[in-house]
Amino acid sequence: MADEALFEFLHMEIVSHVYKEQQSGKGEMDNKDRAVCVSVLEGMGFRVGQGLIERLTRDSPSFKDELDIMKFICKDFWTKVFRRQIDNLRTNHQGTYVLQDNKFALLTQLSSGKQYLEQAPKYLAFSCGMVRGALSNIGLDSVVTAEVSVMPSCKFQVVVQKL
Amino acid sequence: MADEALFEFLHMEIVSHVYKEQQSGKGEMDNKDRAVCVSVLEGMGFRVGQGLIERLTRDSPSFKDELDIMKFICKDFWTKVFRRQIDNLRTNHQGTYVLQDNKFALLTQLSSGKQYLEQAPKYLAFSCGMVRGALSNIGLDSVVTAEVSVMPSCKFQVVVQKL
Repeated sequence: MADEALFEFLHMEIVSHVYKEQQSGKGEMDNKDRAVCVSVLEGMGFRVGQGLIERLTRDSPSFKDELDIMKFICKDFWTKVFRRQIDNLRTNHQGTYVLQDNKFALLTQLSSGKQYLEQAPKYLAFSCGMVRGALSNIGLDSVVTAEVSVMPSCKFQVVVQKL
Repeated sequence: MADEALFEFLHMEIVSHVYKEQQSGKGEMDNKDRAVCVSVLEGMGFRVGQGLIERLTRDSPSFKDELDIMKFICKDFWTKVFRRQIDNLRTNHQGTYVLQDNKFALLTQLSSGKQYLEQAPKYLAFSCGMVRGALSNIGLDSVVTAEVSVMPSCKFQVVVQKL
């Protein structure tokens, strides 16, 4: 349907704009250029995540513990943003969580051939930022990274930073 | 709800990013800078509008005439994007249409004080582009502009270009 497509199209536009602007005037992008792009997208995601979680948790009871928060992200937050729940949540019970989405919405528009795998990271930065922003607003500082091994499946790793 | 908020937050981020990047290193933006920003946002909207209308019209019967297309934009398209229909559609029956939205979603986050009125145009460019992109995909070339007199009410003027 068009309403989830709206988010996907808009996200595609942002990614392509940020990369194009960074590349303008240069022949090839180097690692530093790519890092700038990822950081810009991550920052946008962070602020969007903060805003969203604020609305989502307005009427929610407070959370029992860290795992309770992560479950909220996997269910309520993910459903609102990506129209599906996280398929699998794993944790080492020491602040590291792996959230696996077997059909990640922002990758389904990319073809699944191996040659696109290297393109995948640029479509993950915004979402990593969004998770980090959401957690930050609930009071958890974290580092969020993502990796893709088989498209369109994606694993987000959240490492909660202890004070 | 968070899902429409997602679009609104994301749109805010894009606007602020595009303006910030144009302004970087300069003190004040001049009219040319502002025109560049509007054009970038309009272009993004154009491509998103094209993508959306393609999905929306996939199973739709073909349109009777130009007015029929405009009604589709006011009802189906607007509802998918902004969760409400256009409140009022007027036409001179010579290719000019005025679409009035009395509570335009992308302006409701701005305060309604007069001092914000001059900020309004930057939040309209993307949507103008989206309408133009949607119409273009159905085969209508158009010029789309928007104006705000009392927030958050907004009028979009569509002038269909005759070949």
